[in-house]
Amino acid sequence: MAADWIAADWGTSNLRLWAIGPEGEILAERSSADGMGGLTPDKFEPALLRLADDLLAPDRVTPVLICGMAGAKQGWIEAPYAQVPCPPAFGGAPVVAPTGDARISVRIMPGLCQSGPADVMRGEETQIAGFLADEPDFDGTLCLPGTHTKWVRVAGGQVLNFRTAMTGEIFALIGQHSVLRHSLASDGEADEGAFFAALATGFAEPAAIGMELFSIRPASLLEGLAPASATGRLSGLLIGTELAGAQDFWQNRDVVVVGSPRLTRRYIAAMERLGGSARAATNPELALSGLIAAHQLEQA
Amino acid sequence: MAADWIAADWGTSNLRLWAIGPEGEILAERSSADGMGGLTPDKFEPALLRLADDLLAPDRVTPVLICGMAGAKQGWIEAPYAQVPCPPAFGGAPVVAPTGDARISVRIMPGLCQSGPADVMRGEETQIAGFLADEPDFDGTLCLPGTHTKWVRVAGGQVLNFRTAMTGEIFALIGQHSVLRHSLASDGEADEGAFFAALATGFAEPAAIGMELFSIRPASLLEGLAPASATGRLSGLLIGTELAGAQDFWQNRDVVVVGSPRLTRRYIAAMERLGGSARAATNPELALSGLIAAHQLEQA
Repeated sequence: MAADWIAADWGTSNLRLWAIGPEGEILAERSSADGMGGLTPDKFEPALLRLADDLLAPDRVTPVLICGMAGAKQGWIEAPYAQVPCPPAFGGAPVVAPTGDARISVRIMPGLCQSGPADVMRGEETQIAGFLADEPDFDGTLCLPGTHTKWVRVAGGQVLNFRTAMTGEIFALIGQHSVLRHSLASDGEADEGAFFAALATGFAEPAAIGMELFSIRPASLLEGLAPASATGRLSGLLIGTELAGAQDFWQNRDVVVVGSPRLTRRYIAAMERLGGSARAATNPELALSGLIAAHQLEQA
Repeated sequence: MAADWIAADWGTSNLRLWAIGPEGEILAERSSADGMGGLTPDKFEPALLRLADDLLAPDRVTPVLICGMAGAKQGWIEAPYAQVPCPPAFGGAPVVAPTGDARISVRIMPGLCQSGPADVMRGEETQIAGFLADEPDFDGTLCLPGTHTKWVRVAGGQVLNFRTAMTGEIFALIGQHSVLRHSLASDGEADEGAFFAALATGFAEPAAIGMELFSIRPASLLEGLAPASATGRLSGLLIGTELAGAQDFWQNRDVVVVGSPRLTRRYIAAMERLGGSARAATNPELALSGLIAAHQLEQA
């Protein structure tokens, strides 16, 4: 069955797309490992067609609306950032990507940027738009943990300001490459008690982060710190330090966490332990919701 | 000419040794890339003999005294840590390493450990002993920057306590593997103005470290931050955060920095900028001095 239009979330590592029917129904959902990170600009259209060819009507043009890293400078075509404060997904017009196949017309959503302090996002703005489709009057903070955690102040339908923390990437680098890697749990299991103890340390003494991180190694060598406890301590120290730096975003605010179930649970538990509160987004497909909202706005 | 005895500094990446004559004179200095990191226990003796064979008298036993990672659990033989507070290189007896060649008798210096907070060092304790050979009444802090920076309180000929910061390793991991790597100077050049500005930020707001680090990327993408400025900012943020956490070690103390010329200059300039003072160790071969001091003590 041919799609009315196609929504796609094209990240660094993966491509996901949804074929949408004339009544807004999801006709198909597909994904591949053709992330932006492994593609040169001329390889995006073939990667899209590999996944979507049989979803395209032969006799008309099917619109494809994409969010994410496909719009980066190294992506299909650069979709320039819109500057905050602005609505999350409508601060700038989507950019037309060059295509050869007459059956598709492709556009890519712009990311958001900020100066003073400099920051950028690409893809998360569409998730935020999806969240606002459900809660248009939201006044609070969205926390999107992952490789780079985004902390985003939202009110009046706009992104006011945001910061990005490298917590997830540093966690991964330390786990894969540092002297601590032999002390950590190979399956990623994190002991909860060790996590909360380290969370308190990281939050109270963020300046000690470099020393507290190293200390995991001698605690493992000398004191038999268990791997799951070491992993819990690493995660707790990094998230505790991040939460100390992000206090303006989550203290005394309505906070919604958008991420994988494990990270979402961990961030909510961390904020609650430190005297805040937070809830998980109930819609698991916020990027899709954001693309649908953007599509509808353009049709209106 | 045969050595009276041999001193060796055996680190993770390199082996350095000195042949010492009967009057304490240096007969030869040699090094190889046979670091502990690439050797199984049975490969240490052959690696030593490759470098020292012609320095050994055929008709008597030549003592070899080693400091560093050769004494780690994964090394030639484990030389258990001595617990601080204790003298830096005489807190525990050197451990005899198993050998097959009748011309050598090998011993390895123990490292130092601490509980509460857990910490370890291996090799640096011999450099500290070398420093105390010149300044036995030193009361202050030794700062040994490198992959893992050691901050060491010394008084009365003893190491009182110490902490290790992962600053250098995190700097290297971010430069080699993270999203920031494309923004940094490929030759490692660090702009001084960017370094000092970021030093002040890291020192004043250590909790923001994860966000300030990420910010290097959008500053490069959006504002044209030059690679040398990005590298200076990365170094300044990490060292500023470290100095905030290590204040008890360097504020209002006599501080001596022991490291490569570039890192030594950088740490001294950083402490001076933040209202402290520090000096460089004048003896460039502190490990050798420490091994000589340990050898002399045993002969006495």
